[in-house]
Amino acid sequence: MSDKIRIGLVGTGRIGRVHAQTLAQRIPGVDLVAVTDVNDAAAQAVAAEMSVPTVAADFAAILADDSIQAVVICSATDTHTPFIIQAANAGKHIFCEKPISADLKAIDDALAAVERAGVKLMIGFNRRFDPNHQRIKQAIERGEIGIPHLMHIISRDPSPPPVSYIRVSGGLFVDMTIHDFDMARFLLGDVVEVYAAGGVMVDPAIGEAGDIDTAVITLKFANGAIGTIDNSRQAVYGYDQRVEVFGSGGSVSSANWYPDAVTLSTADNVRRGLPLNFFMERYTPSYQTEMAAFIRCLQEDTPPPVTGADGRAPVVIALAAARSLRENRPVKLSEI
Amino acid sequence: MSDKIRIGLVGTGRIGRVHAQTLAQRIPGVDLVAVTDVNDAAAQAVAAEMSVPTVAADFAAILADDSIQAVVICSATDTHTPFIIQAANAGKHIFCEKPISADLKAIDDALAAVERAGVKLMIGFNRRFDPNHQRIKQAIERGEIGIPHLMHIISRDPSPPPVSYIRVSGGLFVDMTIHDFDMARFLLGDVVEVYAAGGVMVDPAIGEAGDIDTAVITLKFANGAIGTIDNSRQAVYGYDQRVEVFGSGGSVSSANWYPDAVTLSTADNVRRGLPLNFFMERYTPSYQTEMAAFIRCLQEDTPPPVTGADGRAPVVIALAAARSLRENRPVKLSEI
Amino acid sequence: MSDKIRIGLVGTGRIGRVHAQTLAQRIPGVDLVAVTDVNDAAAQAVAAEMSVPTVAADFAAILADDSIQAVVICSATDTHTPFIIQAANAGKHIFCEKPISADLKAIDDALAAVERAGVKLMIGFNRRFDPNHQRIKQAIERGEIGIPHLMHIISRDPSPPPVSYIRVSGGLFVDMTIHDFDMARFLLGDVVEVYAAGGVMVDPAIGEAGDIDTAVITLKFANGAIGTIDNSRQAVYGYDQRVEVFGSGGSVSSANWYPDAVTLSTADNVRRGLPLNFFMERYTPSYQTEMAAFIRCLQEDTPPPVTGADGRAPVVIALAAARSLRENRPVKLSEI
Amino acid sequence: MSDKIRIGLVGTGRIGRVHAQTLAQRIPGVDLVAVTDVNDAAAQAVAAEMSVPTVAADFAAILADDSIQAVVICSATDTHTPFIIQAANAGKHIFCEKPISADLKAIDDALAAVERAGVKLMIGFNRRFDPNHQRIKQAIERGEIGIPHLMHIISRDPSPPPVSYIRVSGGLFVDMTIHDFDMARFLLGDVVEVYAAGGVMVDPAIGEAGDIDTAVITLKFANGAIGTIDNSRQAVYGYDQRVEVFGSGGSVSSANWYPDAVTLSTADNVRRGLPLNFFMERYTPSYQTEMAAFIRCLQEDTPPPVTGADGRAPVVIALAAARSLRENRPVKLSEI
Repeated sequence: MSDKIRIGLVGTGRIGRVHAQTLAQRIPGVDLVAVTDVNDAAAQAVAAEMSVPTVAADFAAILADDSIQAVVICSATDTHTPFIIQAANAGKHIFCEKPISADLKAIDDALAAVERAGVKLMIGFNRRFDPNHQRIKQAIERGEIGIPHLMHIISRDPSPPPVSYIRVSGGLFVDMTIHDFDMARFLLGDVVEVYAAGGVMVDPAIGEAGDIDTAVITLKFANGAIGTIDNSRQAVYGYDQRVEVFGSGGSVSSANWYPDAVTLSTADNVRRGLPLNFFMERYTPSYQTEMAAFIRCLQEDTPPPVTGADGRAPVVIALAAARSLRENRPVKLSEI
Repeated sequence: MSDKIRIGLVGTGRIGRVHAQTLAQRIPGVDLVAVTDVNDAAAQAVAAEMSVPTVAADFAAILADDSIQAVVICSATDTHTPFIIQAANAGKHIFCEKPISADLKAIDDALAAVERAGVKLMIGFNRRFDPNHQRIKQAIERGEIGIPHLMHIISRDPSPPPVSYIRVSGGLFVDMTIHDFDMARFLLGDVVEVYAAGGVMVDPAIGEAGDIDTAVITLKFANGAIGTIDNSRQAVYGYDQRVEVFGSGGSVSSANWYPDAVTLSTADNVRRGLPLNFFMERYTPSYQTEMAAFIRCLQEDTPPPVTGADGRAPVVIALAAARSLRENRPVKLSEI
Repeated sequence: MSDKIRIGLVGTGRIGRVHAQTLAQRIPGVDLVAVTDVNDAAAQAVAAEMSVPTVAADFAAILADDSIQAVVICSATDTHTPFIIQAANAGKHIFCEKPISADLKAIDDALAAVERAGVKLMIGFNRRFDPNHQRIKQAIERGEIGIPHLMHIISRDPSPPPVSYIRVSGGLFVDMTIHDFDMARFLLGDVVEVYAAGGVMVDPAIGEAGDIDTAVITLKFANGAIGTIDNSRQAVYGYDQRVEVFGSGGSVSSANWYPDAVTLSTADNVRRGLPLNFFMERYTPSYQTEMAAFIRCLQEDTPPPVTGADGRAPVVIALAAARSLRENRPVKLSEI
Repeated sequence: MSDKIRIGLVGTGRIGRVHAQTLAQRIPGVDLVAVTDVNDAAAQAVAAEMSVPTVAADFAAILADDSIQAVVICSATDTHTPFIIQAANAGKHIFCEKPISADLKAIDDALAAVERAGVKLMIGFNRRFDPNHQRIKQAIERGEIGIPHLMHIISRDPSPPPVSYIRVSGGLFVDMTIHDFDMARFLLGDVVEVYAAGGVMVDPAIGEAGDIDTAVITLKFANGAIGTIDNSRQAVYGYDQRVEVFGSGGSVSSANWYPDAVTLSTADNVRRGLPLNFFMERYTPSYQTEMAAFIRCLQEDTPPPVTGADGRAPVVIALAAARSLRENRPVKLSEI
């Protein structure tokens, strides 16, 4: 046990539970030794279920444990940058859920702390580890589609979160599109300009909360390619996650993921069931692959596959998109 | 006009009308100069619609026209062999609808007459000219799937014909499976043994008429491959026409053909409409390609692509299948 | 023959030949009585092939024939509006290929002449008659996807036209996207604002000719929906024509159209052949359905299904898109 | 821990390792307390990896542990029936891998011992727990396809096992088709007659070892339906596992399962990668669901979902198929 990597985890909500389970049961060479949560009962439950020996009083208690080498931060978004800074100062390696923050200044302070401490920071953009997106990335890198010209991301949730959540979410672009901005960068590199069109089409209450629920965003990439992102808070048929990249040598595209491959033909139609309903089903394996990649970068002392800079960049795009929507004009990222 | 091939057609029912239209409007270098039918009004109507100059009193009148080089026989099955013999004796080239006959002796007499007269005879197995089946044949011939091991034909009609028709049809194997037996030969060559299982599952009235409506036939080919044919008189979702050939280097298979490529995703399911409903929709282009191939073999004086022997062989398989079903044992074609 | 509609056709190039064939062979109740072309040999050839009795000296000669009720204009784009005006003044009903013109003033003059003469004018946006697009339109109209929120059109050609053509084409938006602008209007109604991003990615020579070859256009519709159009002059895998409309009740989308439905599985991959290569293959049936609809509106004295106003509107969008691209800002149609 | 179900496992080869992992990490409420194997090192390795506290000397040592309630038998096939009898006599519940045995007398003795002891016995037909097959079963049970008429199972391995294995395997029908015979029964119930055609097409060495590598089997079901099974030891494109059931109200069918849903379109073709390569990838989740079902039937004291009789029945079909192949005639199960 002495050479296993010892991990502490803060935040045992939905995504924290996923990471705790992965760390406790799916990845060899690692020990999840402590969890903590502002809701102590939640932390106790996760600890019991995953056989985690310690429920820490708070994040500081985890940081105070010298035997712990790395922390996994799954707590509320507004705690991300302070926790990153504390963990860096304590010399712990860090895995932090997305988004780091909607505040660029706070992000920059956190990244600076990480830089100073010389610890590793990986941001939880799990979709990069999805087999479909991985295959598309591979097709681009191998030149299977030649030089990329166009890219389209369809990213629609099955149903909107509660309006109470929308109100504090930072808005569609920071809360939801952030994943798609990261995917765009993952696939085609830096974005230089963005134009956002959007509206309230799903639920007027979302508009009353100051947000939109539907958007189409045009991206211009540094390499000259052009892309779009299509977002809706509500696709009644389920989680819709598709990507197409078109280039000089062809096109690569992904379809949705289904619970089975069964087709039914009747006198009415030829049909199949709905795609996997939401991110916890659709992207389950990606969370495990992602965490394994984090552990591996600690074990092998290699750079994390998703860096702090990767965490910052989509926030800049999101802020530019928000301004574009407000001012109805293309906005250069250099303006942010 | 002098160098156009002049054609007479007998039988202006459903399939005769298709061929008349193709000859009159779709194929250059040919003149449909006369039609005839036991129902004179039907012949008159087709002549008027397709601008055919002559409605002949009967088939003999067509044969008596020395300017006519070839005849297209679309009349009732029991007229096929006498008409073939008369046409051959009159020195006309012949296109005859399938099946030639259910009577092997009658077929042999007709083929002998054709042989003696030195005219061309082509049998109307239109499915050979369907783009899907053509592509499968091509894959086999090019070696794209290596050496064929297994073959499956799914061939299901959308709904059974009237029981009155069933009663005189010669039975499922001669009436319906004949196309599939031909397809099997087209794709993998000679059949040496057949085992048929079947039953009355669609409509008891079909059983009372002495026939079956559902069958699974196992074929052993001369080349060692094994195949099955799956027949039903009633697929409620429409015409089901699929083929798969599996070999040492892979597999080639065809899907059904649809009127559009549109998918609808709703809260219920992900669906498309039904496949093309029946042979007149599904195989429309094949009838045109088939007739063009007949005209071309006349123009270029080449052998017809579907010969009299090709017309005889599936009848032998059908008779073997019928005996196999009766006696519940595999039957060698050499027994017939 | 006296009650057949008599048609004259001008312009026997590629598309003129298609319409001539449809009129001569596929549509009952109509007589194509005269054709003409600046290239007399081309007109002679078409006349011979389709058994058209007269090759007129010029369009004026067709208009001078009082027995002719309607004209089909397939000549060069710059002749469209003068020919429309002449035909209207001669009291002929008119079918005119797209685009009417790239000059709004010329269009308005032509439409005014049509209005004054009280003749029918139908514009050749054939894609509206394609079974896929028809099915998508039907899904919207029947409410199968609820209220439309988002729309995406993928429209990519297999290869660019010669640069000599590009130079006089009026530019990508007027020459190629015009079809997609029409499709957008056909599906979701009036457009109020457009934002165009684009570039030269396929061939620098296109850029040197003052045009772009790749574009992504964002459309805002009067009904609040948002859409995109994706254009490329070169999809190496063939003609790429897909549409998706997403709404409150679901999504409807079309896939490409293939010459067969055959899949090949080998040790390398699971594959099918390429989609139909270009518009003459992909949209063949739509040209016939379109022309039948024109004839029917004459026979039944109903309004043409694609009006002069429908011909004008996408030109306005194209001009707005061109300005948007030049000025890199969203442009309202009211600015044009 | 006192109320957890305590399990011992014998046989830590490929499939034993899968079950050990499932029991140790994926199913709550169970303790895998001991493993054993004739290869002690293998058992030690699995115990270390899965944190199993005890490596037992042999199966008898497991049976001697009174705290153990149930055993999982993954050892060689010829040990199945003796181990079942020993375990039953020791009062342990039993999960046993398929096939129980190729010897009907041995099976009957084992089932009698289970009956006498009143313990539960579940047979490891994991495919019943696959989401695709489950969905097909559900469609049948819900009447979504009406009354079943026809069934087809495609079941092809990616490559044959070593000839040394073939020689002791009991033959294709007992070794490989056994799964498909079980699937046929799972979906459509009892089989009454079987006709098998087959040959050596993949590798002559398999023929020299006295076996075949390719087969098509026709099944007649007690309910009147007819089915086929298509087997090959070598599908070069990977594991091919598809089922179709056709009935009076429609058809339900499953496609293969792929590692991603990505399509690549290039100038050559439109393609995707190969299906999942073999049963460990394709059926992974089914093993977990299967074991969970076993544990649940212990916890809730319900009958096992796959009984000893379910383990015996496909062996009878396999023996009938073998005789059918030898004698080239349909064989009734009542003959065995």
